[in-house]
Amino acid sequence: MKLVIKVTGKFFDSPGDKSVLSNAIKSLVESGNKVALVTGGGQTARWYITLGRSLNLNEASLDLLGIWVARLNAFLMAMSMPDLAYSKVPESLEQFLEYWGHGKVVVVGGFQPGQSTAAVSALVAEAISADYLIMITTVEGVFDSDPKKNPNAKFLPKVTTTELRSILESTQSIRAGTYELLDPMAMKIVERSRIKVIVTSLDKIGKLARILKGEEIASIIEPV
Amino acid sequence: MKLVIKVTGKFFDSPGDKSVLSNAIKSLVESGNKVALVTGGGQTARWYITLGRSLNLNEASLDLLGIWVARLNAFLMAMSMPDLAYSKVPESLEQFLEYWGHGKVVVVGGFQPGQSTAAVSALVAEAISADYLIMITTVEGVFDSDPKKNPNAKFLPKVTTTELRSILESTQSIRAGTYELLDPMAMKIVERSRIKVIVTSLDKIGKLARILKGEEIASIIEPV
Amino acid sequence: MKLVIKVTGKFFDSPGDKSVLSNAIKSLVESGNKVALVTGGGQTARWYITLGRSLNLNEASLDLLGIWVARLNAFLMAMSMPDLAYSKVPESLEQFLEYWGHGKVVVVGGFQPGQSTAAVSALVAEAISADYLIMITTVEGVFDSDPKKNPNAKFLPKVTTTELRSILESTQSIRAGTYELLDPMAMKIVERSRIKVIVTSLDKIGKLARILKGEEIASIIEPV
Amino acid sequence: MKLVIKVTGKFFDSPGDKSVLSNAIKSLVESGNKVALVTGGGQTARWYITLGRSLNLNEASLDLLGIWVARLNAFLMAMSMPDLAYSKVPESLEQFLEYWGHGKVVVVGGFQPGQSTAAVSALVAEAISADYLIMITTVEGVFDSDPKKNPNAKFLPKVTTTELRSILESTQSIRAGTYELLDPMAMKIVERSRIKVIVTSLDKIGKLARILKGEEIASIIEPV
Amino acid sequence: MKLVIKVTGKFFDSPGDKSVLSNAIKSLVESGNKVALVTGGGQTARWYITLGRSLNLNEASLDLLGIWVARLNAFLMAMSMPDLAYSKVPESLEQFLEYWGHGKVVVVGGFQPGQSTAAVSALVAEAISADYLIMITTVEGVFDSDPKKNPNAKFLPKVTTTELRSILESTQSIRAGTYELLDPMAMKIVERSRIKVIVTSLDKIGKLARILKGEEIASIIEPV
Amino acid sequence: MKLVIKVTGKFFDSPGDKSVLSNAIKSLVESGNKVALVTGGGQTARWYITLGRSLNLNEASLDLLGIWVARLNAFLMAMSMPDLAYSKVPESLEQFLEYWGHGKVVVVGGFQPGQSTAAVSALVAEAISADYLIMITTVEGVFDSDPKKNPNAKFLPKVTTTELRSILESTQSIRAGTYELLDPMAMKIVERSRIKVIVTSLDKIGKLARILKGEEIASIIEPV
Repeated sequence: MKLVIKVTGKFFDSPGDKSVLSNAIKSLVESGNKVALVTGGGQTARWYITLGRSLNLNEASLDLLGIWVARLNAFLMAMSMPDLAYSKVPESLEQFLEYWGHGKVVVVGGFQPGQSTAAVSALVAEAISADYLIMITTVEGVFDSDPKKNPNAKFLPKVTTTELRSILESTQSIRAGTYELLDPMAMKIVERSRIKVIVTSLDKIGKLARILKGEEIASIIEPV
Repeated sequence: MKLVIKVTGKFFDSPGDKSVLSNAIKSLVESGNKVALVTGGGQTARWYITLGRSLNLNEASLDLLGIWVARLNAFLMAMSMPDLAYSKVPESLEQFLEYWGHGKVVVVGGFQPGQSTAAVSALVAEAISADYLIMITTVEGVFDSDPKKNPNAKFLPKVTTTELRSILESTQSIRAGTYELLDPMAMKIVERSRIKVIVTSLDKIGKLARILKGEEIASIIEPV
Repeated sequence: MKLVIKVTGKFFDSPGDKSVLSNAIKSLVESGNKVALVTGGGQTARWYITLGRSLNLNEASLDLLGIWVARLNAFLMAMSMPDLAYSKVPESLEQFLEYWGHGKVVVVGGFQPGQSTAAVSALVAEAISADYLIMITTVEGVFDSDPKKNPNAKFLPKVTTTELRSILESTQSIRAGTYELLDPMAMKIVERSRIKVIVTSLDKIGKLARILKGEEIASIIEPV
Repeated sequence: MKLVIKVTGKFFDSPGDKSVLSNAIKSLVESGNKVALVTGGGQTARWYITLGRSLNLNEASLDLLGIWVARLNAFLMAMSMPDLAYSKVPESLEQFLEYWGHGKVVVVGGFQPGQSTAAVSALVAEAISADYLIMITTVEGVFDSDPKKNPNAKFLPKVTTTELRSILESTQSIRAGTYELLDPMAMKIVERSRIKVIVTSLDKIGKLARILKGEEIASIIEPV
Repeated sequence: MKLVIKVTGKFFDSPGDKSVLSNAIKSLVESGNKVALVTGGGQTARWYITLGRSLNLNEASLDLLGIWVARLNAFLMAMSMPDLAYSKVPESLEQFLEYWGHGKVVVVGGFQPGQSTAAVSALVAEAISADYLIMITTVEGVFDSDPKKNPNAKFLPKVTTTELRSILESTQSIRAGTYELLDPMAMKIVERSRIKVIVTSLDKIGKLARILKGEEIASIIEPV
Repeated sequence: MKLVIKVTGKFFDSPGDKSVLSNAIKSLVESGNKVALVTGGGQTARWYITLGRSLNLNEASLDLLGIWVARLNAFLMAMSMPDLAYSKVPESLEQFLEYWGHGKVVVVGGFQPGQSTAAVSALVAEAISADYLIMITTVEGVFDSDPKKNPNAKFLPKVTTTELRSILESTQSIRAGTYELLDPMAMKIVERSRIKVIVTSLDKIGKLARILKGEEIASIIEPV
């Protein structure tokens, strides 16, 4: 299968051992999958954006700073898989396609201002006709309301993009978090190319293979 | 002033003399402005997308074909201003910024799939903190309904992005055309960076300087 | 075997299905051949050269426009073989060699002004020490006079470069067409590196494998 | 004059306003100087190197992570001077020379593993035949022993590289700090190309112009 | 004026001072001319081609070796004019155009196999619409027969490309030398773009300005 | 095993057949090793450095000239192994890593001024975690004094970096030659990454496989 894995920048904020992610990818590749990884920027991105604001940078430049940090995270992960991953981090989708053609894991930070990491992963998934886009976030999956605010929020193992949109419209409270999942641009691409999206959390990185087999719980967003 | 001019791909569909555009840019530069030009793809783009569909390309690849044609149009315009324009067409916003730093007119086709030419021009305008984004389209400006369908459509010399959105919501019929003006991504960037947008038509290319001085009619969209 | 296939730009002028070419290449690769493809520019190239003339471009720039269109055709074909072909179109012979080293089909448009597509294919064939350069044209092969003018023109299944030159000298009428086959630069390279050239027509693309086995008629030009 | 300014990575560790540096450079450029800036990595570099160690990266890769962070700092500073600085951060001395040729401020992070930021600045200073290499550190200048340990350490307004070496040999305690000033490779280049080095501290960034005129105290290292 | 100067590789074969050439270019630039320089490969090129043959390289690779040496000569000259020349040697005509756009002297070695340095200079001259292509050779200009063999050979101050061709046809003996002046590809470009060619010798490098004013003797080839 | 082979530039100074080196590499690769090759500059480098001095180039530029010649030698060797080697010569360690990732022999000339070929090979060896760095020099291995001056110099089959340093300190006479083996930067990298170094001579190139098996005499330097 062709898989795009998107990991939230928060993964790089804590010290600890990051090899759980490279190991998961290694084992997915060894079982015959082709994998692209997209990394977010996290706290370091926010730090540099703060420095940038103190220097009066415009919005495009601030976004570029965040992209550079996401690429730094991407480079870290690429270096951690020297035999498996392409050593360069692509700076555009066209570069991504070139590197991907070499049959290696390609690790992406971001491409351009005005674009969420979710949108980047959707673009990558579309370009390689991926079987799944796996989004590794801070929550376990998609809920019908914000699980951080509502203790009765119901976990949704399966949800269509249409349903996701209507949850968004009725439930203001879930907005921010869900937006992180799929902003309008990501949504548009996921729908037009009918990409299946799996949502899971950082503590399940070691179980990605089981999630793909349906042996471990996660949400699936199906494009309609 | 720093100006981004976006010209519809239709400009390249007819034979005739294309020097009206290079002459307009030359004269804007000679009066002390810095200019970036963004070109659409037009009919040739559609032709290649048709060929691409017959080859079963995915959506990302079809978009890339359209981008290549838009870049071909950009290259044509760059070659027509050898002393003024940078000879290479940038393939990403970061490349654009590098070329722009040389103090030349930079001509852009497109950057990546899933993105309208309008969004590209908004990105470029934001990145250089442009004074105006000038969109050269097939209609004279913004109307309160579709002028091609409604003979009483009222021309709007000034409109806020909020008003533009509400026109969109109430008037289905104008949707497609306006979408071409400012799709959601372009709108988001125009608003967050407060970019002023001028809308005018192909037959007014020779009057851009007058439009900027307010001596010739055109619509202005103001971000709110 | 190592094969360079050159296809006339006319191939991209008609609508219809272009997969006949990508399928032919796929099947040649599956039988163990290594393939480079060179594409011409066709009608779209002529259209842009016309626009360029209206803008007073110099000869070098007009040639570059034609090269860009040939590269667009090359890109279309590369996108149609995502698992087989290198996704980038090389812009010089040195880039071609780099991409070729990855073991993929590389699709070339053109390299520089003042050079026919035939010369480009001869250069590519020389650089990889190709077994055959296959030229796919609008005529069935080499004739002793112009088949479009002379109904008795004799088809030549085998011809040396020396003979080809003397046909050229005695028969003015065949000049233009033959020139397209092998202009002086292509001829020089074919001779100095002793490259065997096969000439066949667009309607035989599906039969390239048979032509290579000698089971289907075509002309062979042998360097002397 | 041609100036290379090297700023310690610690500059980017504190929040506060970083415009003191871009303003200093702007005013040096406005007085007719040509400036290259070299930035260190600081605390963020150490953080990523720690993450890298947890992933068992080799020494070369760890150094590359530090270089990436130094380049991120370089990019931040380049973005803060959009009209003055080249927007791209060079990845090798040859790229540096290319960008420098455009007459802009070029901001450098690092070039390759096994090389201190001091060595990078010396290389850059040699390549452009700089008049001065200005090193902005955490201490006020060069002392005859470690001012952090010895309250009687004597500030040296002028010192030759030979003297600096002999201070190093007799005073173990000052080693680490001085090493940061000029490691063996930096020392070798400074000597072979006779580059004058000024050492000053972060709190004097606003006074660089005065230091260059000798109106403000700082140490000068003279190559012998 | 826009000038392309082509210097024979023999210039780099002797020890002595090479600054005569950089000084000549500096003074041409100071008088308001824009200059591109094309360098040949000389004896070092022949040495590497010999080594290449011992390694059984194909013709394309041998040509590339010669091009690399010509680029080394180009790099030497570029380094000798650090304030005037672009520091990178272009590897294709498109790169040349990009570098040329920066308003600097661009020094070219060669572009691709199968192409003489004369053809490269003609391409460059065409691309920038040069006023003159100046070829600095080992002979003083164009003669009606080979001056090295025939002591009565007549120097030709003015000659058309048509006349040059007929001299070539009637006088076998002058062939090799003249070929070096203008091989068929160079001739074709010179004619189609009507480029004026001046032929002079190495010992007149210091007098280029005078030659351009007609105050010093040299041959002029006029395209017909 | 992963091997880095460094060959002295003197290898390219004599005419004769250079295929001994490409054959040795081919056979090492065929036995399952991965190989990177680093080439020195030799006499041609010295020639260009002499020309450069006559043009008053600074030290950085002179070093760059030497690096260009080393890259020319690298290119020659890459061309001699078209199926095995990457066709492009990397210009930085990061480019080296990218090319190396393709699983090919990568041939390196040099990276930047102020750096010996020995340091370059050590950097490359560290970056790929090489098993051995093999240095092919003009002497048979490491001696306890200079074998060219002292007929009783004792050949050392095994030596630690510490011992090597102390030989250097006690024996002035061996300095220059040993420096060529491992200058301070190379030494530092070899030690920090514990790279094993084999030293042998040009006339043993055909026996590299035997040396690696310990069947042929050579010196081994072990990092301590």
